[in-house]
Amino acid sequence: MVQDFTSVEEFSQILQDLPVPDASARAAAEARNAQLTKPPGALGRLEDLAIWYCGWRGDARARITAPQVIVFAGNHGVTAQGVSAFPAEVTAQMVANFETGGAAINQLSRCFGAQMSVQALQLEAPTADFTKGPAMNEDAFVAALRAGWEAVDPAADLLVVGEMGIGNTTCAAAISLALYGGEATEWTGRGTGVEGAALAHKAGVVARGVAANPSSHGNGLEALRCLGGREIAAMAGAMVRARTCRIPVILDGFICTAAAACLEHSSAGALDHVVAGHASAEAAHGRLLDRLGMTPLLSLQMRLGEASGGALAIGILQGALACHSGMATFDEAGVSDG
Amino acid sequence: MVQDFTSVEEFSQILQDLPVPDASARAAAEARNAQLTKPPGALGRLEDLAIWYCGWRGDARARITAPQVIVFAGNHGVTAQGVSAFPAEVTAQMVANFETGGAAINQLSRCFGAQMSVQALQLEAPTADFTKGPAMNEDAFVAALRAGWEAVDPAADLLVVGEMGIGNTTCAAAISLALYGGEATEWTGRGTGVEGAALAHKAGVVARGVAANPSSHGNGLEALRCLGGREIAAMAGAMVRARTCRIPVILDGFICTAAAACLEHSSAGALDHVVAGHASAEAAHGRLLDRLGMTPLLSLQMRLGEASGGALAIGILQGALACHSGMATFDEAGVSDG
Repeated sequence: MVQDFTSVEEFSQILQDLPVPDASARAAAEARNAQLTKPPGALGRLEDLAIWYCGWRGDARARITAPQVIVFAGNHGVTAQGVSAFPAEVTAQMVANFETGGAAINQLSRCFGAQMSVQALQLEAPTADFTKGPAMNEDAFVAALRAGWEAVDPAADLLVVGEMGIGNTTCAAAISLALYGGEATEWTGRGTGVEGAALAHKAGVVARGVAANPSSHGNGLEALRCLGGREIAAMAGAMVRARTCRIPVILDGFICTAAAACLEHSSAGALDHVVAGHASAEAAHGRLLDRLGMTPLLSLQMRLGEASGGALAIGILQGALACHSGMATFDEAGVSDG
Repeated sequence: MVQDFTSVEEFSQILQDLPVPDASARAAAEARNAQLTKPPGALGRLEDLAIWYCGWRGDARARITAPQVIVFAGNHGVTAQGVSAFPAEVTAQMVANFETGGAAINQLSRCFGAQMSVQALQLEAPTADFTKGPAMNEDAFVAALRAGWEAVDPAADLLVVGEMGIGNTTCAAAISLALYGGEATEWTGRGTGVEGAALAHKAGVVARGVAANPSSHGNGLEALRCLGGREIAAMAGAMVRARTCRIPVILDGFICTAAAACLEHSSAGALDHVVAGHASAEAAHGRLLDRLGMTPLLSLQMRLGEASGGALAIGILQGALACHSGMATFDEAGVSDG
């Protein structure tokens, strides 16, 4: 199996030859689950999550002890079109906030015992305005994919990726439109606070961007290159690296899910190691999760990005594995099993 | 304010004179929330939870450091009517499992740093079969309320209560029917695994129980005494004690919520310090939460009881308070606020 890449073609080859779960560990986890001191199925989705996780980790009694959170930041030429309520300088200001520990994701990472890092990707050099052509050339795209790939700690046992990038809900909307079609307005949401006429304008920018990049239509990696940004490509690169390391991934919100959709569109099953952490209040997120057949773990009206919804869901997975791997069986506990 | 009770009348007096949140701490928490480095409202429900929690704790920058989980166990005379898929001996067997650390709730409590205890309430003396009259006389009822009251650690800063009691979804269904009316079948669910003809039989037992206890109709404390069990009354007693200590409470599933409903029915606003932890797969739970105007934090198809769904939600509240109390403000971080 190819374990590294220096071109889009090599990255694409990795995507076509991804590892699969350990069937025997998964079967052993299923057998264990059936013996735990609870009525069958009474832990609901926690049981499915635990079995899924054990399969990926190759351990029928796995636990989560080393979660990793990575926030990728990028700037976007499309902000010149006036698509955000915040100025682009906020991206760098928030990176500084991540670095000094003041952001929501710092608190959530600490709360659930996750190692957290931020990767600022050439903030001084925004991607090109995609209403005028591709956001990235191939070299810039590969560099962004590689930034994500290299940021993953192979010793982590769970990965949450997130982003910061003023303007990037516009990118996510454009990617979604390029991959799934429909109307630009269906995929365009308020982001950090765009409403009314500004929202209609944003949808127009999305439509123009997709029209200006015909190679992105129905093509996951081209959509990621032409309509994404460095932080979006980096999230995709990190998800694929995690797959090669058998590290399960929790998605954050709309932008993160758009990055994931590019992978699934390029290689069916590429997200088998991925679970949706939450349903964002950004309306298009639910639509995108539906297309991917994913049911989010949480639905708390969050719409912050920066990996926050995914990080909050770490606790759900930790709880699921704590139950699965820590509970007594009926035999061990001397409990009658009905 | 009365701070203890030795009769139902005194308990009822406490219920009519409950403390309210600290308005100035709440206002200060709201003001702080508006200054945190995120777009307004971007943390969704986490923001509401944090402000609510800070109001109850009287601290605009509160954190959760001492959560408590209590599992109350009781046995039920109504099991003589054949309403459960498990034998009544399982209650005591599961109590032993809680005590040796083998149950789901042990793992979840540890996962979220909660102090956990189990209170077995006279398992050798089941409550009376409520199809033949009240489950408890006044003395037994007061003793059960007091067991819950006394189990709360006044130094805890969050409380989750749960239960174990073969047959107790039958009690919860009967309480719900007595308080809210409708058909017994609407409130009767599968519990630990009752289906088909056995489920129809269970609904019939529920209807007979309510018919046999006319004082329970539309009367919260009478429903709790006549149709509840020791563990259900104890959960209610613990919730009220938590209120007097300004300790916010997370509800578990259907049975726990039925206990809560008795309080709200007796004193509107009695659950202002309470949040619903999860939506159980027991269908009547959603119906009951609707009647109480509560939106659960989680919906993961769990139906185990023993405080498991509530305990899993501890992580959500911990995350909410970590963000609220740990994040930098726009001024502190030097971030432009749009």
